[in-house]
Amino acid sequence: MSSTLGQLFRISTWGESHGVGVGVNIDGCPPMLEISQEDIQKELDRRRPGQSDIVTPRKEGDVCEILSGVFEGKTLGSPIGILVRNKDQRPSSYDEMKDKYRPSHADYTYDAKYGIRAWHGGGRASARETIGRVAAAAVAKKVTDSLCPGIETIAYVKSIKDLEANVDPDTVTFDQVESNIVRTGDPAMVDPMINLIKEVRSEGNSVGGVVECVIRNVPAGLGAPVFDKLEADLAKAMMSLPATKGFEIGSGFGGTLLTGREHNDHFFMEGDKVRTKTNRSGGVQGGISNGENIIFRVAFKPTATIMTEQPTVSTSHEDTELKGRGRHDACVLPRAVPMVEAMANLILVDHLLRQRAQCGL
Amino acid sequence: MSSTLGQLFRISTWGESHGVGVGVNIDGCPPMLEISQEDIQKELDRRRPGQSDIVTPRKEGDVCEILSGVFEGKTLGSPIGILVRNKDQRPSSYDEMKDKYRPSHADYTYDAKYGIRAWHGGGRASARETIGRVAAAAVAKKVTDSLCPGIETIAYVKSIKDLEANVDPDTVTFDQVESNIVRTGDPAMVDPMINLIKEVRSEGNSVGGVVECVIRNVPAGLGAPVFDKLEADLAKAMMSLPATKGFEIGSGFGGTLLTGREHNDHFFMEGDKVRTKTNRSGGVQGGISNGENIIFRVAFKPTATIMTEQPTVSTSHEDTELKGRGRHDACVLPRAVPMVEAMANLILVDHLLRQRAQCGL
Amino acid sequence: MSSTLGQLFRISTWGESHGVGVGVNIDGCPPMLEISQEDIQKELDRRRPGQSDIVTPRKEGDVCEILSGVFEGKTLGSPIGILVRNKDQRPSSYDEMKDKYRPSHADYTYDAKYGIRAWHGGGRASARETIGRVAAAAVAKKVTDSLCPGIETIAYVKSIKDLEANVDPDTVTFDQVESNIVRTGDPAMVDPMINLIKEVRSEGNSVGGVVECVIRNVPAGLGAPVFDKLEADLAKAMMSLPATKGFEIGSGFGGTLLTGREHNDHFFMEGDKVRTKTNRSGGVQGGISNGENIIFRVAFKPTATIMTEQPTVSTSHEDTELKGRGRHDACVLPRAVPMVEAMANLILVDHLLRQRAQCGL
Amino acid sequence: MSSTLGQLFRISTWGESHGVGVGVNIDGCPPMLEISQEDIQKELDRRRPGQSDIVTPRKEGDVCEILSGVFEGKTLGSPIGILVRNKDQRPSSYDEMKDKYRPSHADYTYDAKYGIRAWHGGGRASARETIGRVAAAAVAKKVTDSLCPGIETIAYVKSIKDLEANVDPDTVTFDQVESNIVRTGDPAMVDPMINLIKEVRSEGNSVGGVVECVIRNVPAGLGAPVFDKLEADLAKAMMSLPATKGFEIGSGFGGTLLTGREHNDHFFMEGDKVRTKTNRSGGVQGGISNGENIIFRVAFKPTATIMTEQPTVSTSHEDTELKGRGRHDACVLPRAVPMVEAMANLILVDHLLRQRAQCGL
Repeated sequence: MSSTLGQLFRISTWGESHGVGVGVNIDGCPPMLEISQEDIQKELDRRRPGQSDIVTPRKEGDVCEILSGVFEGKTLGSPIGILVRNKDQRPSSYDEMKDKYRPSHADYTYDAKYGIRAWHGGGRASARETIGRVAAAAVAKKVTDSLCPGIETIAYVKSIKDLEANVDPDTVTFDQVESNIVRTGDPAMVDPMINLIKEVRSEGNSVGGVVECVIRNVPAGLGAPVFDKLEADLAKAMMSLPATKGFEIGSGFGGTLLTGREHNDHFFMEGDKVRTKTNRSGGVQGGISNGENIIFRVAFKPTATIMTEQPTVSTSHEDTELKGRGRHDACVLPRAVPMVEAMANLILVDHLLRQRAQCGL
Repeated sequence: MSSTLGQLFRISTWGESHGVGVGVNIDGCPPMLEISQEDIQKELDRRRPGQSDIVTPRKEGDVCEILSGVFEGKTLGSPIGILVRNKDQRPSSYDEMKDKYRPSHADYTYDAKYGIRAWHGGGRASARETIGRVAAAAVAKKVTDSLCPGIETIAYVKSIKDLEANVDPDTVTFDQVESNIVRTGDPAMVDPMINLIKEVRSEGNSVGGVVECVIRNVPAGLGAPVFDKLEADLAKAMMSLPATKGFEIGSGFGGTLLTGREHNDHFFMEGDKVRTKTNRSGGVQGGISNGENIIFRVAFKPTATIMTEQPTVSTSHEDTELKGRGRHDACVLPRAVPMVEAMANLILVDHLLRQRAQCGL
Repeated sequence: MSSTLGQLFRISTWGESHGVGVGVNIDGCPPMLEISQEDIQKELDRRRPGQSDIVTPRKEGDVCEILSGVFEGKTLGSPIGILVRNKDQRPSSYDEMKDKYRPSHADYTYDAKYGIRAWHGGGRASARETIGRVAAAAVAKKVTDSLCPGIETIAYVKSIKDLEANVDPDTVTFDQVESNIVRTGDPAMVDPMINLIKEVRSEGNSVGGVVECVIRNVPAGLGAPVFDKLEADLAKAMMSLPATKGFEIGSGFGGTLLTGREHNDHFFMEGDKVRTKTNRSGGVQGGISNGENIIFRVAFKPTATIMTEQPTVSTSHEDTELKGRGRHDACVLPRAVPMVEAMANLILVDHLLRQRAQCGL
Repeated sequence: MSSTLGQLFRISTWGESHGVGVGVNIDGCPPMLEISQEDIQKELDRRRPGQSDIVTPRKEGDVCEILSGVFEGKTLGSPIGILVRNKDQRPSSYDEMKDKYRPSHADYTYDAKYGIRAWHGGGRASARETIGRVAAAAVAKKVTDSLCPGIETIAYVKSIKDLEANVDPDTVTFDQVESNIVRTGDPAMVDPMINLIKEVRSEGNSVGGVVECVIRNVPAGLGAPVFDKLEADLAKAMMSLPATKGFEIGSGFGGTLLTGREHNDHFFMEGDKVRTKTNRSGGVQGGISNGENIIFRVAFKPTATIMTEQPTVSTSHEDTELKGRGRHDACVLPRAVPMVEAMANLILVDHLLRQRAQCGL
């Protein structure tokens, strides 16, 4: 189904940007895990607008309410419903969107598919839909921690436009990333990236970039050999985020420039653990984790909404022009970081439960 | 499930490389479509080893047998089973694989996951598993042609190592691609690519590259808005192919170097059709096709099996060395082309049926 | 997943009896259908407590709120979230349930499965969970009406304990059933049934019975041939309702007393329509509708909660006694009628969409 | 999907009665379990025609071949493909079926659904389809035995027409059932039942009956609380078998004649085990096993194929007559026994793996 992800830790998001609210339903969560509204709120606060002066200044409180599945602070094993009511709606900013298709947005394709669209603020195509994912991932993290303690998922901004951060995925810490509003792990790049974002914003323009993510301490054996390869499920999860245009794992596209002799990861024993000397595989071989760090990158295009008049067509199929209004991120990368982590954690927990089901943990 | 793909046109592949055979079960195929063993065999012949002197010389006949679901030349609407029996097994080439993990292969991870592995020829991790996918895609093509005539899926080798082909995705033809054994659409690159493959093979080495794929004449409206975005499902499908390390659609990673003003695809009317002036979206916006050509690229790493002694570990966890044996592709790209097309067609048919179910065609 | 039903019209219910609320998420609903809060509320009012003096007098307002998926009165094609907040909670009535397992309830099995249970009012095992189903079915009915106008689903009380109603499934009307609070189609049985319910209630006892359901004007061809036979999906749906102990279609268990010669339904032509002279098949042959009325029966056990001291065990595993408290139905049958209809409509809409997907309508 | 059952132990059957063969694909089986062709063949021999002189004398060898997923006698964790080639085809017996719809068979409904049908021997609607189920269940039994030793599933003929067997589900043994060709656990009923079957067969007539099944030593906690209740999944599984018309668990339809006071199962402690004094719940409460014996009954209608001229219609929609030909069971009950067991074991293994996934075992 289009709004459901996962086989055993199954999440279904719902809600339009300017409707009553957005939320998620989580089915299959193990029982007896401690979870609080705060645990979820903390993650939502990392993705919400208005958190710093380089993201959209929209005031979306994004306060979540747990509707079900938790009793006296513990998961029941039944579906966990989470609701975030919409606030701060300024539909007037969006009036033109009713009659004109925003370039490089989903307005036209929604109409082509459904013959109807909630045109206020993008409806379901809004980044607000990711609230449900981030909330669900906060629960997923609890499950992973209980079944397989020690796993760390850390994403960070690897590049914005042509500014590339120098980050060591093996050692970067969560605090290093969170210590700066652009969420890059490279201190030297913080100011240049912030300045770039402010500059393009002042021009009514936008930029994109790349988020890199590392998952550390994943045991060997997670994943599946054919269609549900770990990298395939990660690719799908990442490419399901708004504004993504590419995914690569390990050596990625760059790996095609090497020969096999240069590219292969040689095994060796480190104590009683099988390790690889290099990690061009990105921690996954044949769809299954090999115990090395899982490392992948996701490309985000420049924000489609820009404050410039652009040619487009109307819903009545006439050529026209449209200028972006409202308050938008000139660069989604800082807020994309917790989204990438969330999607990674959702894929991970699903494969953990699948492994427990088929092979035992 | 790990060996199942698709929601409405659902395929399940089965079989190990050196077991009895490999095959596929297709559930959900519409009835009354004409399909013959030849239709399927034709596609299998494009992916099979031994088809030219730049691919592995293994003699795998790969003759398929339709076991069910077809009656007097027409689909019944019931599951279509297809079987290809394994031949030309030389397990002796693989004897060392029993006790040593091949670098950058799935030997170790299978053992870590399952505690057991069909070590002859990679078992389920062998490229032979893709036979079932290609066979199913031949059926998928029939469905697509009947419901939505005119759709063309054409893949071709875009690059091998640093040799890049110059191909126009809007005009390249199937015959142009099939006219050369390397399956690139750029005549100028045929000989250089063939020579490069032969050269690395003679050195016992290997190379990778990029396959580009275009799907033309897809109607606007296919796909889904959230998790099952068309590009997300394509990404998963491609990253589920052996040896893939990256996926990008439209502007891809390169698009992150542009600003929004440069990147946005402006709509305009061409007759009564909504078109975009550029196609950095790659034919998909918000997860749904917009009627432009769908264009994506898939990175294939250099073949892991090389004819050189490499460090590795044994199944009893001791450091050792291993040299590749047997007959392998020094470059999988030419044979990857039909696999990429197959996966694209499988995703497409599923979304076509999903669209028919929810919105009507 | 345990809280999800359907493949294409997919509903997921959530919520505990005395938590924040209960609700449902509907994925896969076609777009452009008119639906209002009132359409859903009307059905909820048929199942809610306090509607007559033979059902539980609990005052559950059960006012629903549409959270998503509907825009300006029309379905968007995106997930439809529906929420009913819980009210009138008197957890004190349930205090003993915390420490003692109610006989023939799910208290013990929930603890055995999950190690935790929302003991107030049965948590997820409460009949309140069916609110989500009934709400979803109101939407399902809209879909069915739009794709296949004329289908009528009518359930009615066939028996209560040994009182059996005489109802002709081919002609009974919705108004006849709704005209009496016991919801039987047999006017002669209304008073006896009401009196029986009041009598057992006055004794602190309870009764069960059988609901019969007819679905008229279903086109031939709906269903599936193997596991998802129409009668199999109906059986699952009905047996997933609380308190059900049996399901039969057409001739049912009684049909085993006939010989094949007596049992077979002979085909004949009625104008250009293929008909059967008898309908022991119950409208389904080989899992697929044959155009005759679909007729099935569902057995509901007597309500487990009775106002009598009964032997049981405590959560600390000691023998003890427990007497029912709170306000409960002495007979669930009148309120089960809309639940049976709801489940039938949910199965029907799913198979309609599946038929549209695979074969076209 | 119509030909797939189960969420974690997922089986897909394929094949038509008179096509190349029938079979099954099993996905999700745990690795490292010993399984042989003989293990599967043994169960197939219990369901095959020609096994005694009261079942159809058709000579179907039904020899199975394991195509994949087993290596050196152990499951690999990859899909297990099993094939049984069709033999002894006498399509000439079926010639009339091409043009006339057999009463109470699926011929007409298949045509109505698909517009095409494999008319030889019923195609997919043939009981041969159950070969795949029985084969898969033999594997399922291995999984159950390894994860939860001691579980016993025993089905037996409870009644044929009005002849009812007196069997104690708590003590009946597999050997008692298998010791007589009619497969009833009541020695006193063996001869009367055999005589009845032979008598109706000699008249060209047929009879049906009821199979009862007990599953012993199931731990408390298996199942799911809402849609996938254990009894709901069992109901679906049983109603998906050919010729079934009804399902009931525990007290079933008869339970509607009792009051709550008579019907409730009182808990008591037996040592440290929670038990119930009676078992009207049939071993399941709120969809979840309570540790008591799971007991259910399935109604099978009299065989539709009888050796008498019957009115029917032709495929060209004209009134006509048809007399059964070929070799058919005058009573399917003896062969239905292993089918019922198989379906029970398939549901059980799926819920076992689901329990392991969500809650641990």
